[in-house]
Amino acid sequence: MESPMKKRVVVALGHKALGTTFPEQQKAVKSTAKILADLIENGAQLIITHSNAPQVGMIHTAMNEFARFHETYGAPMSICSAMSQGYIGYDIQNALRSELLLRGIYRTVATVLTQVTVDPYDETFYHPVKAIGRYMTAEEAAAEEAKGNYVAEEPGKGFRRMVASPRPLDIVEIDAINALADAGHIVIAGGGGGIPVLKQGSSLKGAGAVIEKDLISGRLADLTDADMLMILTNEEFVIINYESDAPVALSHMTPDEAKQHIANNEFGKNKMLPKIEASVNFVLQKQGRKAVITSIDKALDAYLGKTGTVIE
Amino acid sequence: MESPMKKRVVVALGHKALGTTFPEQQKAVKSTAKILADLIENGAQLIITHSNAPQVGMIHTAMNEFARFHETYGAPMSICSAMSQGYIGYDIQNALRSELLLRGIYRTVATVLTQVTVDPYDETFYHPVKAIGRYMTAEEAAAEEAKGNYVAEEPGKGFRRMVASPRPLDIVEIDAINALADAGHIVIAGGGGGIPVLKQGSSLKGAGAVIEKDLISGRLADLTDADMLMILTNEEFVIINYESDAPVALSHMTPDEAKQHIANNEFGKNKMLPKIEASVNFVLQKQGRKAVITSIDKALDAYLGKTGTVIE
Repeated sequence: MESPMKKRVVVALGHKALGTTFPEQQKAVKSTAKILADLIENGAQLIITHSNAPQVGMIHTAMNEFARFHETYGAPMSICSAMSQGYIGYDIQNALRSELLLRGIYRTVATVLTQVTVDPYDETFYHPVKAIGRYMTAEEAAAEEAKGNYVAEEPGKGFRRMVASPRPLDIVEIDAINALADAGHIVIAGGGGGIPVLKQGSSLKGAGAVIEKDLISGRLADLTDADMLMILTNEEFVIINYESDAPVALSHMTPDEAKQHIANNEFGKNKMLPKIEASVNFVLQKQGRKAVITSIDKALDAYLGKTGTVIE
Repeated sequence: MESPMKKRVVVALGHKALGTTFPEQQKAVKSTAKILADLIENGAQLIITHSNAPQVGMIHTAMNEFARFHETYGAPMSICSAMSQGYIGYDIQNALRSELLLRGIYRTVATVLTQVTVDPYDETFYHPVKAIGRYMTAEEAAAEEAKGNYVAEEPGKGFRRMVASPRPLDIVEIDAINALADAGHIVIAGGGGGIPVLKQGSSLKGAGAVIEKDLISGRLADLTDADMLMILTNEEFVIINYESDAPVALSHMTPDEAKQHIANNEFGKNKMLPKIEASVNFVLQKQGRKAVITSIDKALDAYLGKTGTVIE
């Protein structure tokens, strides 16, 4: 049988690929590494991106509780995000390197610290929706608000700091990511959606925000000129009318069909929306591109065209 | 005047280049960026490495105090080291990018998460010398020892966890670092000495240790085939017999002379020893290499051959 052609594939890993705590993540990345190695053995040249919600939340809470207790400086979200890229990248690159070595494949897996510019006028800065860190008391919440941060109450549970989730614009380190991928290395980039930064003259200023990892995966796939974007999640197929009596699993959508489903609000609230948007934006930029959304355990089958929801 | 030839230079930044707290570091990296940009404007193709002692200590303490308080999982040293590379790399790459843009230089500055293998039988594992994290009470110290960790008492101050400082062997991501440097990007790598890892079959296991950043800078310079290693510290010259009546500032040493000074124990306890060792090892590997040790504010003069202690 002929070996499949080399294909550049951006893979987006979600929470299931990583787990939550330190030991959970170490275990989860081992299974994830096997799945990624299967893709590589089948000719995929991988650029990997991943979520970071529990990890960055843990880091943010630990650094800032420590700072409060010791009356020292707290860590801004952007620094926590940079730390989470270091931590998660380390675990993924290690697990994948090891799995590849076991299969006799000698490849460098490298994590590139990634910043992503966002628009200071992005509307989400006025309506932050991402909850970060632990639950706070009413007094602590008031203190956060006094600092200019948003908080929201979850009835019965307490208050949480809310940060914006702006759209990604440019990937600051894109040339480095492309140089590594072009040299045949496996790259981990844009972790946790990338560190969101605002352009201020020649400087970049960290933003108190979290970029949706699905949206950055679409940008990353576009800007690295990938052949395929794979968004790995919990479900084998995208389902429309999920909460109705007649849910439908989709195996294929054109961008126009996807837009129609979005307009009809048929994806409900099951977090599929940014995955579809990222896929549509990616395939619309250039002929011949393919996006696929599927569950992490079906990644190889989806890569081989046997399952998943394909957008092309 | 003729423009100087492009030279690959590994620069090692110490504590003075970074400061200690979050705001201190943000300020310090701005001055450091100007110094690095001066080198780049004068033809240096930079690979940057840096220390991380206060930063990794802060992260380690915060993550582990938080874990103790909430009875959850603590962060191993290797993960704290990965986090510190993310945090410090983010600040350096940002400051340098901004400084270069102000000078009309468009270059990507990319941080590569770096692991460094160490020998499990390295003698320092039996005599840990690097203090990490905050002072502990006698009971806390006993609990650490029960976990198999080393602690040492500083009279009047309390107990601290001690970790080993093994010698660096291989840089796991060296091919990625070289690919980026070869493509003309500015690379930050081996931060904090690199994440120390032990080979276990096909796997790499994080070691409870900290690699001396001077030693990794020498390995990095060797393995990237740099023309020059610059170790930037607080003193313009290496001084022998520092604590005697007749200290001597050295402007030049051959590797043999340096070895003789080491054998005579003439560098005392002023942290110069690993800087000299790294320099000697680097220049001995290949003809035509040059190492220079100087203060951070004299970096450009030293690069231009006007000052500093040269080992060649």
